[in-house]
Amino acid sequence: MNARIPDPKQSALFAPIEADLSAVEDRLLDATRSDIGRVRDISGHTLLSGGKRLRPALALLAARLVGRTFPAERAYAASAAAEMIHMASLMHDDVVDEAHERRGRPTASSVFGNGITVLTGDFLLAKSISLLAHNDANLHIVRVFSDVTVGMAEGEVLQASVAHDLTITPETYEEVIRRKTAWFLAGCTETGAMVGGGTAEEIAALKDYGAHLGLAFQIADDLLDFLGDPKQTGKPLGTDLKDGRVTLPLIQTLTVCDSETKAHLTALFQTPDISDTEIATITGIIARHGGFEHARMVAETHAARAVACLTGFAPTPFRESLENLARYVTARDH
Amino acid sequence: MNARIPDPKQSALFAPIEADLSAVEDRLLDATRSDIGRVRDISGHTLLSGGKRLRPALALLAARLVGRTFPAERAYAASAAAEMIHMASLMHDDVVDEAHERRGRPTASSVFGNGITVLTGDFLLAKSISLLAHNDANLHIVRVFSDVTVGMAEGEVLQASVAHDLTITPETYEEVIRRKTAWFLAGCTETGAMVGGGTAEEIAALKDYGAHLGLAFQIADDLLDFLGDPKQTGKPLGTDLKDGRVTLPLIQTLTVCDSETKAHLTALFQTPDISDTEIATITGIIARHGGFEHARMVAETHAARAVACLTGFAPTPFRESLENLARYVTARDH
Repeated sequence: MNARIPDPKQSALFAPIEADLSAVEDRLLDATRSDIGRVRDISGHTLLSGGKRLRPALALLAARLVGRTFPAERAYAASAAAEMIHMASLMHDDVVDEAHERRGRPTASSVFGNGITVLTGDFLLAKSISLLAHNDANLHIVRVFSDVTVGMAEGEVLQASVAHDLTITPETYEEVIRRKTAWFLAGCTETGAMVGGGTAEEIAALKDYGAHLGLAFQIADDLLDFLGDPKQTGKPLGTDLKDGRVTLPLIQTLTVCDSETKAHLTALFQTPDISDTEIATITGIIARHGGFEHARMVAETHAARAVACLTGFAPTPFRESLENLARYVTARDH
Repeated sequence: MNARIPDPKQSALFAPIEADLSAVEDRLLDATRSDIGRVRDISGHTLLSGGKRLRPALALLAARLVGRTFPAERAYAASAAAEMIHMASLMHDDVVDEAHERRGRPTASSVFGNGITVLTGDFLLAKSISLLAHNDANLHIVRVFSDVTVGMAEGEVLQASVAHDLTITPETYEEVIRRKTAWFLAGCTETGAMVGGGTAEEIAALKDYGAHLGLAFQIADDLLDFLGDPKQTGKPLGTDLKDGRVTLPLIQTLTVCDSETKAHLTALFQTPDISDTEIATITGIIARHGGFEHARMVAETHAARAVACLTGFAPTPFRESLENLARYVTARDH
């Protein structure tokens, strides 16, 4: 999927901020333009490999929703910084997971090698803060984004620490996705609301919206790893299982199934080089035990809570987009 | 070498800021204390594996030298942030270079694996900015350190881009070491001077001092790779050559030698799995062509320029330390 040709569903969601998103795209091109050729190549590779631009969109929608003021350059810098942190994290994740494909395209690490990809990720992380520090006099925004990045790294390490461990609790799973996804999306809406001149109450409501959206989004993402269409998601089914990541549908199933099924699941999960057949068997067991239904219900609960955070705001196209976004993340097929 | 038992030469250099350095050590322990166990383990491993604490020392000496004010918490936060960025960069470099030892101890990546080491490096990078943003109202310091980190990543990528390339010019070599080392040390003294309430002129002079010190330091470091005592440096001789890094002594030799020697050097350098014998042969050729003398002269010139930047300051123990430091970096054996 090319960033310049967004899919229609998403395009409608982001219609009220289309011009803003296009301005952010220009800022991203500018900010990733290093005078070191190889840095430019790798940043460009990741930038042009698409992505939903969910984080900039959240910051922009929050800023426009609050709507007291719209200091465009500050809003665009914050939105671009969020996307750059996301890009850096994807690049490093692909190194950590030894992933060869993302969104149906080869990963930066598989094209350019791990070393240079790690370093270019560092470049993007630092550049995002530099962009904020040069375009915004609000130190609080630097705080939010640096804390978000701290949390994201901690979440990824926690996830790696509990990989291949079937005794992981739902609480630990939530802790992982809270740090690696929810805090970040909360940081985007919080920052947008701050840039837009929101009151403390508005900023808190939009931050909560982002946190619930993030939990819904990540649980839905983990569901797609079992149930998605690889042509749509751009990655093969069962990637999480292959990487030893135990997510909510499986955790729930292990909680409710009998000991025989548990032993069977454990044996399947621990198979070295787990095959598509084993993945299909695990998927079948989870389906029979209502693991997917449970996870979908948890995701939908968080999506509903996200929508509820918006009730205090006047009905505008921006609020409508944020509401639809919360519904879309649990219904999406990629 | 243990951080708690610094070597005597260095200890004397840093004597005027001994108490400050000890306070920074406490801030470092605090700031790297994540509630994710594995993050704590790896940060701790890198923290306790020593290091010269050169960057905090530079920031502290600059702040004390300027001496108009010494806001201790701000100075300690800036100094700890500098060391954390350095730690993160070492962790990522060891992943990039697939290094197994640093300072005679196993690297974090060799103990904990590449994935978690990359992520913990990200944690430290982000935490350094978070520490600054929470302890300092001076956005300019965030700018300096984020720009320094951008430059460092670019320098490392540039270095990787020209690896194994014997046609590298002295200008490109200087560009690499300027970005990967000199800008950082300049950022430390600049920040220290700002925290200390220095005038624009004092800040500029101390920034220049740091830049020249950085160039001298890196050239001396590159010399140690050929001429150092592995027991002192903690890494085997010829590591740069093994990793395909072409540094000033070799660049200079290739500029002055005859075509036959050039062909010989090229053949030796391109040997797969270059052995100690080939390293010794290359070292001998460089020595006969004055490559080491030339590099030492360039380093000493930068050290002298660094000292010259200090002439406007009153003679204090802090100025004396900075002067001796410039002399020490070119004379050190590790």
